[in-house]
Amino acid sequence: MYFSKSFIPILKNNPTEAKIKSHQLMLRTGMIKQSSAGIYSWLPLGFKVMKKIEQIVREEQNNVGVQEILMPTIQSSDIWKESGRYEDYGEEMLRIKDRQNREMLYGPTNEELVTEIFRTSIKSYKSLPQLLYHIQWKFRDELRPRFGIMRCREFYMKDAYSFDISDDEAIYSYNKFFLSYLNTFKRMELSAIPMAADTGPIGGNLSHEFVILADTGESKIYTDKRIFEVDSTKTNIEKNSLSKLRTDFEKYYSVTDEKFNKNEFEKNVPDEFRLQTKGIEVGHIFYFGDKYSKPMNASVDYNGKKEFVKMGSYGIGVSRLVGAIIEAKYDDKNEIMKWPMSVSPYDCAILPIVNKNDNSNLEKATNIYNNLKNKNIDVLIDDTEENLSSKVKKFNLLGIPFQIIIGKNFSEQKIEFKEIDKKPEFISLEEIIKKIKNKSN
Amino acid sequence: MYFSKSFIPILKNNPTEAKIKSHQLMLRTGMIKQSSAGIYSWLPLGFKVMKKIEQIVREEQNNVGVQEILMPTIQSSDIWKESGRYEDYGEEMLRIKDRQNREMLYGPTNEELVTEIFRTSIKSYKSLPQLLYHIQWKFRDELRPRFGIMRCREFYMKDAYSFDISDDEAIYSYNKFFLSYLNTFKRMELSAIPMAADTGPIGGNLSHEFVILADTGESKIYTDKRIFEVDSTKTNIEKNSLSKLRTDFEKYYSVTDEKFNKNEFEKNVPDEFRLQTKGIEVGHIFYFGDKYSKPMNASVDYNGKKEFVKMGSYGIGVSRLVGAIIEAKYDDKNEIMKWPMSVSPYDCAILPIVNKNDNSNLEKATNIYNNLKNKNIDVLIDDTEENLSSKVKKFNLLGIPFQIIIGKNFSEQKIEFKEIDKKPEFISLEEIIKKIKNKSN
Repeated sequence: MYFSKSFIPILKNNPTEAKIKSHQLMLRTGMIKQSSAGIYSWLPLGFKVMKKIEQIVREEQNNVGVQEILMPTIQSSDIWKESGRYEDYGEEMLRIKDRQNREMLYGPTNEELVTEIFRTSIKSYKSLPQLLYHIQWKFRDELRPRFGIMRCREFYMKDAYSFDISDDEAIYSYNKFFLSYLNTFKRMELSAIPMAADTGPIGGNLSHEFVILADTGESKIYTDKRIFEVDSTKTNIEKNSLSKLRTDFEKYYSVTDEKFNKNEFEKNVPDEFRLQTKGIEVGHIFYFGDKYSKPMNASVDYNGKKEFVKMGSYGIGVSRLVGAIIEAKYDDKNEIMKWPMSVSPYDCAILPIVNKNDNSNLEKATNIYNNLKNKNIDVLIDDTEENLSSKVKKFNLLGIPFQIIIGKNFSEQKIEFKEIDKKPEFISLEEIIKKIKNKSN
Repeated sequence: MYFSKSFIPILKNNPTEAKIKSHQLMLRTGMIKQSSAGIYSWLPLGFKVMKKIEQIVREEQNNVGVQEILMPTIQSSDIWKESGRYEDYGEEMLRIKDRQNREMLYGPTNEELVTEIFRTSIKSYKSLPQLLYHIQWKFRDELRPRFGIMRCREFYMKDAYSFDISDDEAIYSYNKFFLSYLNTFKRMELSAIPMAADTGPIGGNLSHEFVILADTGESKIYTDKRIFEVDSTKTNIEKNSLSKLRTDFEKYYSVTDEKFNKNEFEKNVPDEFRLQTKGIEVGHIFYFGDKYSKPMNASVDYNGKKEFVKMGSYGIGVSRLVGAIIEAKYDDKNEIMKWPMSVSPYDCAILPIVNKNDNSNLEKATNIYNNLKNKNIDVLIDDTEENLSSKVKKFNLLGIPFQIIIGKNFSEQKIEFKEIDKKPEFISLEEIIKKIKNKSN
């Protein structure tokens, strides 16, 4: 893609309305554009990042055997009255009357609707477990939307639901998601800690938040540093292996502030391992048994007996992750963003010095661009006439991990190439390709 | 995927509420489930088909240089007041008040919002053309939603928008979409005819509907049969080549009923080439100049002069296409659906005869299943204890193009294999793989 033809509307300065770095950077680099309070459009750069995140989330759901469906955004109020949450939910629920005056709503979450789908489709315990997920827009009418897409009103979320015959089986399902979440965030180069958490309006008695450390986080967290060393790479999706993984994590104290207890923290965590900091919630899993299946009468036949299914639900904030990755990765001091390769909008940038009367550098750049394209490397080439230092400054914000610079002293065998936060090297195109490909795998 | 573990809730009989074959088949094979009037959930089988259609649509947009963005579903009424369509749109627009009592709406289309994004982002004619698309849920509050996902309220649509400096350039953009639509539908094995059409509430003076022939279609169409022979394979996205393609099509009379004129039809189409039939609209493209850019003040600087941009818009009904393909491909008489390979939910089905006391056939089936999986062939294996004839009947409805049948006389070298609407052959696994792969390309 040529920068001059792309739709990447860069702002010259940080927008004053943005208070945190992800919001600033996303507006400044034209990743998003606000359309109303707490509602954003995703422009090509932001959209590409979000799509890559979505795809990682999808693959890791599929990897633990969850099936993808898609529920609509607009729901009938009837099922929420059945579960008893229609009144409870308060003003955060966007309530709508259609032209026939029916009470509808924009789904803030989907426990009710998926339970309705389940109860009319599955009759026998032999069809259990059922693990279903969807990735769909949700709406929560926040009183004070803020921090850009981190606390907005219309947001993109993966939510999954599990249906099992017993508590024991349900915990097995829960643990599958536990593992899949660790794998998901790892692929985005985030270290997300699972923390014992309150269940809040979803209900139930078992819940973990997955939190990444960031100064701008809204959650206070208290943890034992040794939790970062827990190894999940040898876990497979067998019952015992998953159960061991949970135990390995739960050895270490790790809670959000609703669950915080000073005495316990100090009793369980030796001084040198105590960590009190802030974090961003990027995932949340819940086990709530028959909280919805009972009032909504979602049961299966179990050898002639009617058995309410045991359910859990499992969320990942897909759009929020775009901001969370920026909060975790953006180097504010040096004004350098570096996207993890797995979610970067492009693999490599080419920055030629282009003069009005001399486009030889642009030709060289185009040559390299075509070569990289043939190797399936996705490249953004800055064909504008800006001077090099302002191009570099701009691309340091765009965050594409690799840069090729084509200036006065260009040489085929010693091309100026740098990882965005490192020193330049002077190497051949072949070596450049090797380096980029290495990072991609 | 094993059928017993899948979430494919099959109905024994055709649901009585469904009046057309796509609606019947989609409910019967568990592709969708209605959640409210005109609002559906997509279950795994239907979801897989829709996602494949979406991906084809996406690739063919990218192929003509359109950039993907994503606008939100909920819009502010302000921009619709600017364009003057807020009152015009009537009750089909789902109007919403948020908790702050602001007038919002669920976007039925996006001319206003994309114009708003454009006008604050692009300042100079040098950044033109800009071609943007998104694939997003829309809502139209139909008075009488019917025919399942063919005329529903919440639907999935690709809509694209072009911004140009002059009529001439804008027609060039229009023609790019014209070609990309032909390519899109061809990849789904649909022959869609471009027909001169009315512009309706979108406005403008140039418009084509892309219509596929189907008895159950809601559009009456009048066309010259020779239009099916027009060759677009040699067209490239240069101006002249595209312009010639338009001319080649427009030689033949081809209109929907709003534009129908009996005299012209009879004058221009020799008797033997006249075709009056029904069709389903699957795409619609519009050119409307400055209809939105003028009232909304979307202009660029053109050598010191302010110039309103010339716009067009381009829609494809992604969710509707699932139904349209069924209408075009389902053989009602023999109760056989055959998905085009490019959008089929699975590539191949394996139907073993499974008895309570003998699972040797299931083992053989699993072997073949693993072999095919290793070749990246996506397989659904029916591991239930239903008898073979009811399995075949069921899979004829599911529409997976290839079936492997494993019964009493199974032989490694002569496996029973059939294309769903053809006679069985007895061939080796190697030959089966070759046949499936051939069809996939």
